[in-house]
Amino acid sequence: MLVSGGLDSATTLAIARDRGFECYALSFDYGQRHRCELVASDAVSKSLGAAEHRTFTLDLRQFGGSALTDDAIEVPEGGGEEGIPVTYVPARNTVFLSLALAWAEVLGAQDIFIGVNAVDYSGYPDCRPEFIQAFERMANLATKAGVEGHPVTVHAPLIELSKAEIIRTGHQLGVDYAQTLSCYNPSAGGLACGRCDSCRLRAEGFAAAGVSDPTRYQGKPE
Amino acid sequence: MLVSGGLDSATTLAIARDRGFECYALSFDYGQRHRCELVASDAVSKSLGAAEHRTFTLDLRQFGGSALTDDAIEVPEGGGEEGIPVTYVPARNTVFLSLALAWAEVLGAQDIFIGVNAVDYSGYPDCRPEFIQAFERMANLATKAGVEGHPVTVHAPLIELSKAEIIRTGHQLGVDYAQTLSCYNPSAGGLACGRCDSCRLRAEGFAAAGVSDPTRYQGKPE
Repeated sequence: MLVSGGLDSATTLAIARDRGFECYALSFDYGQRHRCELVASDAVSKSLGAAEHRTFTLDLRQFGGSALTDDAIEVPEGGGEEGIPVTYVPARNTVFLSLALAWAEVLGAQDIFIGVNAVDYSGYPDCRPEFIQAFERMANLATKAGVEGHPVTVHAPLIELSKAEIIRTGHQLGVDYAQTLSCYNPSAGGLACGRCDSCRLRAEGFAAAGVSDPTRYQGKPE
Repeated sequence: MLVSGGLDSATTLAIARDRGFECYALSFDYGQRHRCELVASDAVSKSLGAAEHRTFTLDLRQFGGSALTDDAIEVPEGGGEEGIPVTYVPARNTVFLSLALAWAEVLGAQDIFIGVNAVDYSGYPDCRPEFIQAFERMANLATKAGVEGHPVTVHAPLIELSKAEIIRTGHQLGVDYAQTLSCYNPSAGGLACGRCDSCRLRAEGFAAAGVSDPTRYQGKPE
């Protein structure tokens, strides 16, 4: 299970646990600017009862190409960018799912969970159902388990939900969203900026869900 | 272009150059036991005129599960193992192709070359044509380039060739196979053991190709 420390993956973890899975949480220290993500990932994994939380190190800054990993590219604040945003990390979900597949194979696990969402997906191509299906198909041709008749299923239980539906689902399953971090530009202590696209989507989601927003902001949300 | 320092990827690089591509060679420091692979990758990339050779670090020992990355598992010497060998690294080609895809996206490249081979493939599931096709399909749903109408092609020009055909092709294109290393268990200085499955396949390939074998062995090949 991929756990980023954000709202979506925390909800996904709660859903998997609710379905009876023993959960192995995988996070990435990939050179992201805001390392408080990793603190949030660990807190979320522990409080939602993961059997293990592992942080895998791979430095995607070796390639650059995104505002989230390349210091030369600024994180936008205006909202309403056209097309695919600069915060897109090249092939990130492909790389992360591939590494989840590697760990699943070592663990003997047949189920991979990822908290991608196609509704409020911010324009990332690797958050769409057709991508998840194509990855699963590829994975079952790539692996020992797939070849030997124990196929892997890639679960994306949030993929058709709105942000408000995700928050309502997690709220019912007891997710403590105060532990999660969605902001692209948090303070060193993990306080959200309230201005980036991710903060906007999150705040709108809590409002639409009718759930009180426990996000700790640097200032007031706009 | 994925370059491992082995015979197959060196031949693939020569083929791509012969087809007129400007080649960006990508190797992985993934915690493999024999780091002389990386020396070979650099020598091969330079002598075959790659525009750049980059070694990406990601430590797959963080997961373990293979004789090539896990010190607790021995490299077999007997040959003739049944099924998928213990030298299989979980999801390795999936992980490597995903990272090649990330770099391709940053470079603006639309062509990825990999030297996999389905004929003498040693039982690895991620060396088959159906895997390569499924990866390409997934990649074009995953990426900005794919979504924006600039699809990626994954080229596997060796996939249907025998080892002897690969060697003959590379020989004609001027590959210096003395620079390449295929052995699973080389000496610290990069001399081949002559006993592992990979050494056996390589020696048989040179014999069948009628090309003199420049491999530097620790002792005599068996």
